[in-house]
Amino acid sequence: MHFQHSDRGLHYQERVARFLEDRVLPRAKDYFAEVHTDPTRQPPTMEAMKAEAREAGLWNMFLPGDHGTGLTNLEYAPLAEAMGKAGLWTPEVFNCNAPDTGNMEVLHMYGNAGQQDRWLKPLMAGEIRSAFLMTEPEVASSDATNIQTSIVRDGDHYVINGRKWWSTNMAHPNVAIAIVMGKTDTGAATHAQQSQVLVPTDTPGFRVERMLTVFGYDEKPIGHAEVVLDNVRVPAENLIAGEGRGFEIAQGRLGPGRIHHCMRVIGCAERALELMCERLLNRTAFKKQIAEHSVWEQRVAEARTNIEMCRLMVLKAAWMIDQAGAKNAKSEIAQIKVAAPRMALQVIDDAIQAFGGAGVSGDTPLAELYATVRTLRIADGPDEVHNRTIARLEYARHGGRPVK
Amino acid sequence: MHFQHSDRGLHYQERVARFLEDRVLPRAKDYFAEVHTDPTRQPPTMEAMKAEAREAGLWNMFLPGDHGTGLTNLEYAPLAEAMGKAGLWTPEVFNCNAPDTGNMEVLHMYGNAGQQDRWLKPLMAGEIRSAFLMTEPEVASSDATNIQTSIVRDGDHYVINGRKWWSTNMAHPNVAIAIVMGKTDTGAATHAQQSQVLVPTDTPGFRVERMLTVFGYDEKPIGHAEVVLDNVRVPAENLIAGEGRGFEIAQGRLGPGRIHHCMRVIGCAERALELMCERLLNRTAFKKQIAEHSVWEQRVAEARTNIEMCRLMVLKAAWMIDQAGAKNAKSEIAQIKVAAPRMALQVIDDAIQAFGGAGVSGDTPLAELYATVRTLRIADGPDEVHNRTIARLEYARHGGRPVK
Amino acid sequence: MHFQHSDRGLHYQERVARFLEDRVLPRAKDYFAEVHTDPTRQPPTMEAMKAEAREAGLWNMFLPGDHGTGLTNLEYAPLAEAMGKAGLWTPEVFNCNAPDTGNMEVLHMYGNAGQQDRWLKPLMAGEIRSAFLMTEPEVASSDATNIQTSIVRDGDHYVINGRKWWSTNMAHPNVAIAIVMGKTDTGAATHAQQSQVLVPTDTPGFRVERMLTVFGYDEKPIGHAEVVLDNVRVPAENLIAGEGRGFEIAQGRLGPGRIHHCMRVIGCAERALELMCERLLNRTAFKKQIAEHSVWEQRVAEARTNIEMCRLMVLKAAWMIDQAGAKNAKSEIAQIKVAAPRMALQVIDDAIQAFGGAGVSGDTPLAELYATVRTLRIADGPDEVHNRTIARLEYARHGGRPVK
Amino acid sequence: MHFQHSDRGLHYQERVARFLEDRVLPRAKDYFAEVHTDPTRQPPTMEAMKAEAREAGLWNMFLPGDHGTGLTNLEYAPLAEAMGKAGLWTPEVFNCNAPDTGNMEVLHMYGNAGQQDRWLKPLMAGEIRSAFLMTEPEVASSDATNIQTSIVRDGDHYVINGRKWWSTNMAHPNVAIAIVMGKTDTGAATHAQQSQVLVPTDTPGFRVERMLTVFGYDEKPIGHAEVVLDNVRVPAENLIAGEGRGFEIAQGRLGPGRIHHCMRVIGCAERALELMCERLLNRTAFKKQIAEHSVWEQRVAEARTNIEMCRLMVLKAAWMIDQAGAKNAKSEIAQIKVAAPRMALQVIDDAIQAFGGAGVSGDTPLAELYATVRTLRIADGPDEVHNRTIARLEYARHGGRPVK
Repeated sequence: MHFQHSDRGLHYQERVARFLEDRVLPRAKDYFAEVHTDPTRQPPTMEAMKAEAREAGLWNMFLPGDHGTGLTNLEYAPLAEAMGKAGLWTPEVFNCNAPDTGNMEVLHMYGNAGQQDRWLKPLMAGEIRSAFLMTEPEVASSDATNIQTSIVRDGDHYVINGRKWWSTNMAHPNVAIAIVMGKTDTGAATHAQQSQVLVPTDTPGFRVERMLTVFGYDEKPIGHAEVVLDNVRVPAENLIAGEGRGFEIAQGRLGPGRIHHCMRVIGCAERALELMCERLLNRTAFKKQIAEHSVWEQRVAEARTNIEMCRLMVLKAAWMIDQAGAKNAKSEIAQIKVAAPRMALQVIDDAIQAFGGAGVSGDTPLAELYATVRTLRIADGPDEVHNRTIARLEYARHGGRPVK
Repeated sequence: MHFQHSDRGLHYQERVARFLEDRVLPRAKDYFAEVHTDPTRQPPTMEAMKAEAREAGLWNMFLPGDHGTGLTNLEYAPLAEAMGKAGLWTPEVFNCNAPDTGNMEVLHMYGNAGQQDRWLKPLMAGEIRSAFLMTEPEVASSDATNIQTSIVRDGDHYVINGRKWWSTNMAHPNVAIAIVMGKTDTGAATHAQQSQVLVPTDTPGFRVERMLTVFGYDEKPIGHAEVVLDNVRVPAENLIAGEGRGFEIAQGRLGPGRIHHCMRVIGCAERALELMCERLLNRTAFKKQIAEHSVWEQRVAEARTNIEMCRLMVLKAAWMIDQAGAKNAKSEIAQIKVAAPRMALQVIDDAIQAFGGAGVSGDTPLAELYATVRTLRIADGPDEVHNRTIARLEYARHGGRPVK
Repeated sequence: MHFQHSDRGLHYQERVARFLEDRVLPRAKDYFAEVHTDPTRQPPTMEAMKAEAREAGLWNMFLPGDHGTGLTNLEYAPLAEAMGKAGLWTPEVFNCNAPDTGNMEVLHMYGNAGQQDRWLKPLMAGEIRSAFLMTEPEVASSDATNIQTSIVRDGDHYVINGRKWWSTNMAHPNVAIAIVMGKTDTGAATHAQQSQVLVPTDTPGFRVERMLTVFGYDEKPIGHAEVVLDNVRVPAENLIAGEGRGFEIAQGRLGPGRIHHCMRVIGCAERALELMCERLLNRTAFKKQIAEHSVWEQRVAEARTNIEMCRLMVLKAAWMIDQAGAKNAKSEIAQIKVAAPRMALQVIDDAIQAFGGAGVSGDTPLAELYATVRTLRIADGPDEVHNRTIARLEYARHGGRPVK
Repeated sequence: MHFQHSDRGLHYQERVARFLEDRVLPRAKDYFAEVHTDPTRQPPTMEAMKAEAREAGLWNMFLPGDHGTGLTNLEYAPLAEAMGKAGLWTPEVFNCNAPDTGNMEVLHMYGNAGQQDRWLKPLMAGEIRSAFLMTEPEVASSDATNIQTSIVRDGDHYVINGRKWWSTNMAHPNVAIAIVMGKTDTGAATHAQQSQVLVPTDTPGFRVERMLTVFGYDEKPIGHAEVVLDNVRVPAENLIAGEGRGFEIAQGRLGPGRIHHCMRVIGCAERALELMCERLLNRTAFKKQIAEHSVWEQRVAEARTNIEMCRLMVLKAAWMIDQAGAKNAKSEIAQIKVAAPRMALQVIDDAIQAFGGAGVSGDTPLAELYATVRTLRIADGPDEVHNRTIARLEYARHGGRPVK
């Protein structure tokens, strides 16, 4: 055991940090101006940054093995953290943004040659964007067996009917493909009813009903949609892996994906802590620097401590995925999935309090960070369900009933 | 001691509840449609509701004594709670919305006959709206001695220069007058430097620089502005009470005002708890009603308990103001000012978690409630400053140094 | 609604406070010296104080109606708080200590003339002490249906077999009678299986197996025992109220009893806060009075706020019992049963932290207070069960299934 | 970076685990019976276990480098955790118990040859025990500059006067030597006033005034004493390192020492979690295994998560001490010093709640564990002071004033 990053990891950390500093952050203003002017058009600044990142080899770093840059999850973690600290819009620069990353992983692991050629290739090239349609508004999606969307075989096609929401990326100008989770056989065993199928977003019957807000933010240019699938027909070859494997694919997908979120979230917390310290050092109340008031010493200390502990946890979980696969890191992934957002929300909330009115307004990134991170206590399974998993694995060590 | 509301109080509770149920809530949709269509125009639906409320004698109920409806603060409390539960846009219907209420109280207590005639009368009639300009972006406004805005006597006029923000109501179509806090004498004793002056919002040099957001909400039609005062000249008779009395006026204003906020906040928490219970009873996960999962039993129970305790505290503080004035209820006011928003934020956050994606979106009022209530841990003094007051009063009982 | 205590209540508050100050606290040292010298003998100092209290009419004040002093629960509450603040050994001085109070209530409400003459009279005179044997070591006693002790009719007698623990008072030199809860009919409806029976502690087969500790304290001279009932025979007339009414009696008993505990607990918290403030004002670290460090301002303020809120809650619950009976105050009683100990533990723990090493040692009463109050999150039903009750009553308002 | 323990580390982990399982835990009962029978005599069972541990080479493993077993702090950490899990009395078996370990480190690093020969040798052989006398009852010892004990040069001797408390080990039958912290020069720079001197416990004037309790426990056979030093004379050569170096020595000592405590505390938390799970799986309430109640799923999951995060933090801090010395791990040591006991207290408290009455009594080790771990939020500096250190190091990154 040791806590020194690999040379290769450090090399990438240094390069990503420099790239963010030199090429990305100075163009944030231009980028957002373009988004604001016309959110239906992919901002040229983003495309320029993407081209430079790809050129620099800082591209698809999330993909383990030889398909991306050959980094391990453990090596990728600090890079995702750096992007999270720079701003949650920056992963797209490196083609490392959710849900495209998860979709690429799914196609990489479960897609056949035709699917990979048709969809994985342009995704990895950053030419198109994708969505993942799982959550449904009418049922508690925390329990995957509740899914109501139907995928029915009809000759050479599947016909899909259902309603999905929180379909991230659906406002993206380049979105082209969605992976849709639904049930092909409601009579099968509980976890063999689901399948996943590729649905081009321009298929007739595929309709964005409305865009959702997150605490008042529309999160453009990404956006989260409510999507209606109304007798959507796709060729049978669009099915991923095979009927009844939807649950399995979802599980495989969520391991590294959850870790990526956590990495970024730790970056968000670092940013909040940095802003908070600067503020506390630069304001005076009751004749003292606010930093001198001991209640803030306690909060800053707890922020630092909790960030460090969560970072170690996410690194360990990444290492375990590298060593033994996501399945064997089930408890660790669930642990950090719950712990990281909760930690970050506390740090961000304290930072908001340190800033007062500026904290809740648009003058700092804090309120929007809070909103986004808050969704992560819900997305990809709420805290309660992950804690249930952790507890049952714990009980199993002591003779409790086995966990599926 | 007893816990039964007075007959007069119960009578008003019943009438306000019925009015909200029958005349206000059914028109919410119309009202927001009008706001959405043209936020620069006072929505006719609001004016209609106001006329009816005034007609029904449910008007200016916040004003103690004979000037409003003759209700005590203790009797008014449940009415404010009912409005808070119905929605934070409803107090305007009854001419009971901040900051107009506080401004009316100031004019009522400190204004001279001319000022009352010119500004208090139309405010009490609901014909104009007002703002209170205290907080400044450049300094920690938690310490009132930090204020930088200058109010300088120049012949028959005062000339005001400064920058204010979180000036609520500045987007309101009917806003006409602002009470501005500034320093008339930076050489005077610490708490005798400040003065308050009436500034019509159409005075040359009075400029709304921009509107602020709270999380991602613009809180229209009310709105919070950043305002620049650039050599604003007002007649000397616009000074309230006298030079050097600004701090005293602010203190007097904030007692009942803070209580009103707390009352409404308890209503917000009740609403969140109600929504949460309904959701938990209407969804199923892992083969059980979510309400049956015991973690939710604990959260619902804590919500109920904490709401009850905060309500009792706010009622006691109201009673103390009625009996002995805000000055003698200093600790109690500070206590509930800190406790009520914190409690409500927890209840709302749990409700968000119960709703999942619907909780953070615009499909429930929860995310916006969270954002609004979050500002109350900052507005009118941050938690830390109120806790400081409470602690010093406590220390004083044990021989600690006296609290100013 | 108002928050002023009645004249009669204030009169008793003043007298109890003076009695504690003048007659009780100055003799604490003597009392504990006697306990230490011979814990098997009732300390003469206690008997002397009891005689004086009885003489002064400060006796059996817990009993509502005409049987005690005629005080309401609401009027009694501040008296119990004062005793809790003075020290948890002081209620005995006033014949107001648990579990004797609860046992007297049971005999008062459910006992027949013979039982009252034989046991209630000497209990009310303070001549004997009593125990209440409900909790069992082998089962989760939070669920009363789990009770295993059997009470079997055998001619003119009942024969009792079982094992009980946490039988408070069993170390008391004057303990003479125990009320034992057991099952008379395991085939009856769930809540009609239990009965309560009076068992003199010198009955053959009634055996104290051992005394229990609470965080290392033996809590002498009261003490908590594990008791074995081995074919204990008592006359059939010792049955209270009737077979199958044990659960009903337990419910009736626990309402006011829980409230009494909460009142005392609030007194404990007041004492801890007082000690904490004195300590913070009398120590210096890093060139400042510790009271000046703002983290302590936050803690002291929260302590004050939470004490005030819990006190109001306990007063309201007491008032509801007075007005409408414990049954109609079910949620309120459960709320304060959970909230008061939790609040007090936090205040005591903060006080311990303020005292450092002195806080965990015997040099302050804090560590022992912590230990005793900690048991109240378990005794008379654990937090989780009370929260379950509160939640179900809440759900019932929204159409959830009815609560028994 | 990787998370696999070294082969050597794993080898020792396996051997210590087996030794505890086979040789120590089965003799716990004998050991405590001996302690109980005569606490003034070193229990023969302990001496037998010590001899076997030394024989097996499981001895002095805490000492880094070649003087012990050659283990790093990182390798030692899991061993300390295993001892903490087995019971806080077990480190003595391996000569790895505080405060002897810290005292050996001090003598090892700062002692001269004579001191090492006279005191370090028998300490390392387990023949004598030692105490560390730093904390004083009259001042806030969190601020080391407050120390009042005087060490005055008088010819060839030092004369020591003062009062110390929380002098652990002073009840140990083999205690022979104390390291005493005091001031040799109150006129020197703040951190150059203190010195440390070796004082044999049988020196005239060295007097144990009384033994202290922790909650209600006397923590025999170790014990914590209040010690009076009344004109205690020791030869000048008993001074450690040099006059004015006392603060420096204390700092050096506390780094690894704090880490050792944290390691053991994590073991305590593991034990509490294990006991909690077993209990939850073996009791039934309301017709369900208590483990099935979802509130317990949340608590068990949080316990597991927080234990994992704290363990990683302690391992990282140990690694940093190994790599760069305690001075460069200042923030990390402070972080885990605060985080580990707080985490463990929560886990233990939840376990107590799971056990109900058995949890607060002597039937489980939980209440005593709670009491002992609670002292660690105070000992070696209270949380508030460590958090202050962490915060100031954090501020320093942003231009805050330098931390001494």
